[in-house]
Amino acid sequence: MQNDFTTQRIPAKGYAVSSKDDKFQPFTFSRHPVGENDVLVEILYAGICHSDIHSARSEWREGIYPMVPGHEIAGRVVAIGNKVSKFKVGDYAGIGCMVNSCGECEACKKSQEQFCENGKTVFTYDCLDCFHDNEPHYGGYSDNIVVNEKFAIKVPQNAPLEKVAPLLCAGITTYSPLKFSKVKKGSKVGVAGFGGLGSMAVKYAVVMGADVGVFARNDNKKQEAFDMGAKSFYTSTDGVKEKFDLIISTIPTPYDVMAYVKLLGYGGELAIVGLPPAAVSPKINIANLVWSANRRVYGSLIGGIKETQEMLDFSLENKIYPETEIILAKDIDKAYENLTTGKAKFRYVIDMKKSS
Amino acid sequence: MQNDFTTQRIPAKGYAVSSKDDKFQPFTFSRHPVGENDVLVEILYAGICHSDIHSARSEWREGIYPMVPGHEIAGRVVAIGNKVSKFKVGDYAGIGCMVNSCGECEACKKSQEQFCENGKTVFTYDCLDCFHDNEPHYGGYSDNIVVNEKFAIKVPQNAPLEKVAPLLCAGITTYSPLKFSKVKKGSKVGVAGFGGLGSMAVKYAVVMGADVGVFARNDNKKQEAFDMGAKSFYTSTDGVKEKFDLIISTIPTPYDVMAYVKLLGYGGELAIVGLPPAAVSPKINIANLVWSANRRVYGSLIGGIKETQEMLDFSLENKIYPETEIILAKDIDKAYENLTTGKAKFRYVIDMKKSS
Repeated sequence: MQNDFTTQRIPAKGYAVSSKDDKFQPFTFSRHPVGENDVLVEILYAGICHSDIHSARSEWREGIYPMVPGHEIAGRVVAIGNKVSKFKVGDYAGIGCMVNSCGECEACKKSQEQFCENGKTVFTYDCLDCFHDNEPHYGGYSDNIVVNEKFAIKVPQNAPLEKVAPLLCAGITTYSPLKFSKVKKGSKVGVAGFGGLGSMAVKYAVVMGADVGVFARNDNKKQEAFDMGAKSFYTSTDGVKEKFDLIISTIPTPYDVMAYVKLLGYGGELAIVGLPPAAVSPKINIANLVWSANRRVYGSLIGGIKETQEMLDFSLENKIYPETEIILAKDIDKAYENLTTGKAKFRYVIDMKKSS
Repeated sequence: MQNDFTTQRIPAKGYAVSSKDDKFQPFTFSRHPVGENDVLVEILYAGICHSDIHSARSEWREGIYPMVPGHEIAGRVVAIGNKVSKFKVGDYAGIGCMVNSCGECEACKKSQEQFCENGKTVFTYDCLDCFHDNEPHYGGYSDNIVVNEKFAIKVPQNAPLEKVAPLLCAGITTYSPLKFSKVKKGSKVGVAGFGGLGSMAVKYAVVMGADVGVFARNDNKKQEAFDMGAKSFYTSTDGVKEKFDLIISTIPTPYDVMAYVKLLGYGGELAIVGLPPAAVSPKINIANLVWSANRRVYGSLIGGIKETQEMLDFSLENKIYPETEIILAKDIDKAYENLTTGKAKFRYVIDMKKSS
């Protein structure tokens, strides 16, 4: 049986959009055979990330269609290549935003594969796979996936898989800047945008010992914020008196970036992880940075594989999980609508097994 | 004699523009009497900063006219208020970009007077003096100035005053981000824009032990850069292979900010100190920061008084001086023209004594 997997293409069933204006439809396709360093993972859960919506609708750039989104993937290893050492059949595995990279450049050697200096980062979907004849790579809204074992995250057998899935993007995206900015006990951390990413940022920051303030578009989720350990909650930056060491902006829509810079203390940092649609992406006038001097702004883009494993271990150890709502694949369009209109509470996760 | 100074307004002669399109003309005015904590300084040298041009021409915002620019001031104390302890008559003193602030807020207490939280920073010119009936404050292109002793920098008697003057803005503006970004031996520092500010940044960074690369608009001053200790020199960011820990941008005209962000290594920082005219001030799309993640951008605005004194002491100890060309006040318009067209080599300094 395994020999077939290593020589023949793997049949897969997923859910795809065929254009930026399309709704999701069942989509039958195939994946490349399991290479000697690859694992074949049966996908059990796939989280829905706001990036999926931006990509499916070509809001960042023109997408590659048909597109099977999904880069928050948790499942079970069902076949392995003959050089695989990290997994055995039956293990749980997680796959996030990347499935391959050159492995040889300085960035890859430091496990910052998202910055592969040879431009060979293969993102999980909406990306051509330069290691496999430039075929489009399809994401997690499907029943299986084949990836290099280096890009599969080890997940212990007792982990709640449906909660693990969203960690692979929402988790690492918020964990990484908290570590990059060296958040520690007593740090003042603001979290702007309180959806799937924002709620994870709050939970991590609280466990790291920070005093956390939340900025949300309305007060629908105020109680949830306090339940997660936030100390303050705002629906506007106007009149806010406290100053922050770090503000993580997860906001996926246009907003006034400088309003958050002005809430930083001397030496404070604004980490931007939310990416509004390209057509309305906010801009920072450098003159404003000079007049609000000594406050740093940076972007953060997921995190490397090593840090993703560290994030997952940290999350499980501290029982930091996303708030999730399990849905079936037939409800993806509805979920997108709820996320776009702000009606979604936190993270939708597709139960792929039940969807088939 | 001193009693007169403390009760009567001080007559002053300076050089002013009466509108943004005007040329400089002699201008007779008066300054407030010497308060108990004030010093009256006879101005001997006044540097010409690119900010003077932006302000005189209302390029940042509508200016306050008549305007006497100049915030790089060196001179001799000729009278003191009865509570002054830092200076005695005959001492040398330097005055930079600020002449007063509230002194009571957290920022002022930390000697970050440029960020006075009560909005009471009095800049040396083009600013109303809230401590003196909101009269316009006039700058250094004049024969004297009255300031609170806290805002006068101590200058030893053996210092070359004409070289000290530009340090009070060009020096502190470049010294401050080098310290803020913790430049040390072996740091890779880029300096973008190689005029009055840029050349100071190069000299400080070299003395701090950094490997310095210079980005200039042409190679007219390539030899000067190497003479100052720069290791590399570029006239474009295209194709540059080296990565920097810190790039200080002193560029006063429109440019592609992201081109410099992309030359930063992981964790590197772009410090912006140059302020192009407001109408053409560059903007950073936050999406680009995310795609070039983990590179920080911040603005830096002169520096506090305590750090300015530290900078001056450091400069004198290490004999770090600006390249200067002494001119007379009648040549200010010509100097502005040369600075605007890139013909000026480095810093023009007005000899106020010879100009009168």
